[in-house]
Amino acid sequence: MPTAEQIADTVHRYIGLLAKGSADDIAALYADDATVEDPVGGEVHIGRQAIRGFYSAVENAEKDCELVTLRVAGNEAAFQFRLTVKSGDGGMVIEPIDVMAFDEDGKVAAMKAYWSAENVSSL
Amino acid sequence: MPTAEQIADTVHRYIGLLAKGSADDIAALYADDATVEDPVGGEVHIGRQAIRGFYSAVENAEKDCELVTLRVAGNEAAFQFRLTVKSGDGGMVIEPIDVMAFDEDGKVAAMKAYWSAENVSSL
Repeated sequence: MPTAEQIADTVHRYIGLLAKGSADDIAALYADDATVEDPVGGEVHIGRQAIRGFYSAVENAEKDCELVTLRVAGNEAAFQFRLTVKSGDGGMVIEPIDVMAFDEDGKVAAMKAYWSAENVSSL
Repeated sequence: MPTAEQIADTVHRYIGLLAKGSADDIAALYADDATVEDPVGGEVHIGRQAIRGFYSAVENAEKDCELVTLRVAGNEAAFQFRLTVKSGDGGMVIEPIDVMAFDEDGKVAAMKAYWSAENVSSL
């Protein structure tokens, strides 16, 4: 199983890729049969191809992303971050708490994102 | 299913009871067959009686507890909080991120606490 350092590294890489990476780069962090539920209560995207599609929706937007808090425990991580998506003169800021479970190869096996409209603000 | 307001109320009640409530009070927030994994990767406490036993270990300590961040999504909540446990002239501060899933009656069906020794500091 991955060490706490490997899990933390992957979370930091994810945050960096959310800002500046491609949907392919992000999808490569996930296991083949991984699941993404973002937000929790919404559609569950199953498998790397569906996950790639999910991230491709905002791939070309101008974004910034900052890790706020990270907790690693067992083979999982919970972390709060701040994602800024710019659009013309404005844009939006969203501040979710995400949870990721990791498989034995250190790939993300499941991601769940906790946020609602309350956690989105305008720039 | 519980509303977002009901879920938020229960999280606030949990934080208050962690500071000043009894193990019985806290266990009453949980469903009969609920599970608690605190920290993630450790033993899973199954059922309200086992959960009561888990909380009774620190029931009589002098504590303070403060909610830092709360995210409610679907039938779940993720929240960061700061628990201070006093002991003589010293004590410790622990800052986990917890995730709770709620059942149709608004009881906590599952709790997972994300923290490690890195997130504990001395007073």
